[in-house]
Amino acid sequence: MLSRQIAQKLRGYETPFYLYDTALLRQTLESVVYESKKYGYKVHYAIKANYDDHLLAIIREYGLGIDCASGNELRKAIEAGFDPKGIVYAGVGKRDKELRYAIEQDILAINCESIEELELVDALAGEAGRVADVALRINPDIDPKTNHCIDTGQADSKFGISYEEVLEHAKEIRALKYINIIGLHLHIGSQIRELHVFENMCNKVNVIVENLEKLGCSFRFVDVGGGLGVNYDVPENEPIPNFASLFSIVHNHLSVGDREVHFEFGRSIVAECGELITKVLFNKTTATGRKLVIVDASMTELIRPALYGSYHNIENITSEDEARDKYTIVGTACESTDVFDENVTLRKTRRGDLLTIKSAGAYGMSMASRYNLHDLPGAVYSDEIQ
Amino acid sequence: MLSRQIAQKLRGYETPFYLYDTALLRQTLESVVYESKKYGYKVHYAIKANYDDHLLAIIREYGLGIDCASGNELRKAIEAGFDPKGIVYAGVGKRDKELRYAIEQDILAINCESIEELELVDALAGEAGRVADVALRINPDIDPKTNHCIDTGQADSKFGISYEEVLEHAKEIRALKYINIIGLHLHIGSQIRELHVFENMCNKVNVIVENLEKLGCSFRFVDVGGGLGVNYDVPENEPIPNFASLFSIVHNHLSVGDREVHFEFGRSIVAECGELITKVLFNKTTATGRKLVIVDASMTELIRPALYGSYHNIENITSEDEARDKYTIVGTACESTDVFDENVTLRKTRRGDLLTIKSAGAYGMSMASRYNLHDLPGAVYSDEIQ
Repeated sequence: MLSRQIAQKLRGYETPFYLYDTALLRQTLESVVYESKKYGYKVHYAIKANYDDHLLAIIREYGLGIDCASGNELRKAIEAGFDPKGIVYAGVGKRDKELRYAIEQDILAINCESIEELELVDALAGEAGRVADVALRINPDIDPKTNHCIDTGQADSKFGISYEEVLEHAKEIRALKYINIIGLHLHIGSQIRELHVFENMCNKVNVIVENLEKLGCSFRFVDVGGGLGVNYDVPENEPIPNFASLFSIVHNHLSVGDREVHFEFGRSIVAECGELITKVLFNKTTATGRKLVIVDASMTELIRPALYGSYHNIENITSEDEARDKYTIVGTACESTDVFDENVTLRKTRRGDLLTIKSAGAYGMSMASRYNLHDLPGAVYSDEIQ
Repeated sequence: MLSRQIAQKLRGYETPFYLYDTALLRQTLESVVYESKKYGYKVHYAIKANYDDHLLAIIREYGLGIDCASGNELRKAIEAGFDPKGIVYAGVGKRDKELRYAIEQDILAINCESIEELELVDALAGEAGRVADVALRINPDIDPKTNHCIDTGQADSKFGISYEEVLEHAKEIRALKYINIIGLHLHIGSQIRELHVFENMCNKVNVIVENLEKLGCSFRFVDVGGGLGVNYDVPENEPIPNFASLFSIVHNHLSVGDREVHFEFGRSIVAECGELITKVLFNKTTATGRKLVIVDASMTELIRPALYGSYHNIENITSEDEARDKYTIVGTACESTDVFDENVTLRKTRRGDLLTIKSAGAYGMSMASRYNLHDLPGAVYSDEIQ
């Protein structure tokens, strides 16, 4: 782990801050590029995971496209130098001005998530005198009678157009003159660690593509989304997610002819290269005997534990004490939910020690807030540390 | 409700935005000032609930003090013109630079939440050549054998010094030369709607004050915190919280001699005067038949439903349709948890309608984030609408 190696050097930076291991990011990108090239797969980076400029510049070097979730994310990607023709824009609620901007930039595809949105994109493209390239984002849940669906909860989610609705409105969709349906987009979930789930996804996609093709909808590409999980429990065991296995499963189970196959990875690319470094402010013991370590980070820098109950591995990177103890790690925010983790075994921890909260590169900084008027955290890059 | 009366005028503002009813804020402040004066009670506004400049200027007019949770909140309050001698600063994790600033500004009291913090404030005040006024923030849970405790969960929380720890360290605390303990601070929770809970609080406070006094800790004031709930379910029924009943309970049950009694109110002052106004972008129906209304706000503007499962009453303020339907109201963020509410009965709702998400004046804007690179929402004040 990077932070323990350079712990003393980190004392020079104002805590809390995100520490990015740019060498690990590069290795991760090399892996995803190498593995995807074997099958000619195209990979988009889901910029919502982390839109740090320095990281984006590195990601751009490796030729990835971008998956956006808002007009501002689209603008950010274009300003960071990504080719608009490698950018897809998904999201259940796009504003008119965001769609106009996407149409004007002539991006790879606007992933439409409702019939109303398809009609709106058609109208806005017509106004702009253009034909917009779109992908249909389909909610992948289909009738269990024809397919083995494990993931039935999806059918009720806010994402995508229901498969039934597409079938019902196929004629109207085909009649829209200012949109050009070039892709199909599906996304089955997030932080998926059991890779057989992707087999089910492929089987679903095969059926959807076949049926839509029969209705006269042809697609140049199929975007099978992302969802590849990372090892939050013991990140050292698997710093780079298993892209090879995922691609191999998709290669073996997806039957979409000679269509391009696209993936979107956010967490799996940036989660492990980022750590949140925080300083211990105080120790105290509650009346129930619980030992609290109060750190200078909080849910304002990393909300995942408070918002989702997410686990992040925590380590004391400056204590040299052989003795260990169990602590509850709490943040500075004036909120009971601002607890990073309970019963964490750490080397004996004292005021002034630095802790690392690992695997925080994704959905850390991008979800930060200024609650309690906290300053936003800074960023330190391993390639800039002397 | 303000927003329905002026719905057409609201069409001129870019959604989503917070709408603040400044007349209701003034009525609320008049109520809390009038009721507190009956007993000579002092009220602090918990600035973390909302630090909007326009609202702060109005709150200042009514003579309230400020309760801060960070150095930046303290700076904000001072810049907004609040007298430092009416400002208290609480928080489990205060940084050295924040404490130095508080000491330098000579605020009413730094509410210390651990023995280590007391020692640190003593050291920093000594360095600055000052004596800092502090309050002990005590975790109010005390041995059930001597007191009727309903709220035992408190004992394990991160807030405050445990009563036992104060007793154990009373001698060391008294020996600190650069702090002057002038107050006792307790806080039993938040959004408390059953006022009898405050009776229990008073009984606890009485015991704590008496016991600490015996140990030679004398206090000029007792800050009994806040926690008074608001009516999220039907805000129209109770736009102004029942300050009178709370003060009356405290008056009847608290026995702290001629000490000043302080309160800190955040939510109860600003929650009901704020609404989040959002526009309907799309309608769609899931495969399970659930009718979704996709609005242009999201958890980035109001995270309480996603973070706490909090309920906010939602109304369509522009639909004139007599027919009603049940909808699930979802936001634009690329997150499954970004759902404002399910099974909401609204007038028939279409693209372009404005919805109000009520009682959003507290912990709405102050917890906003820029996730998905969303712009922060604007604010519209009723006294500025023509």
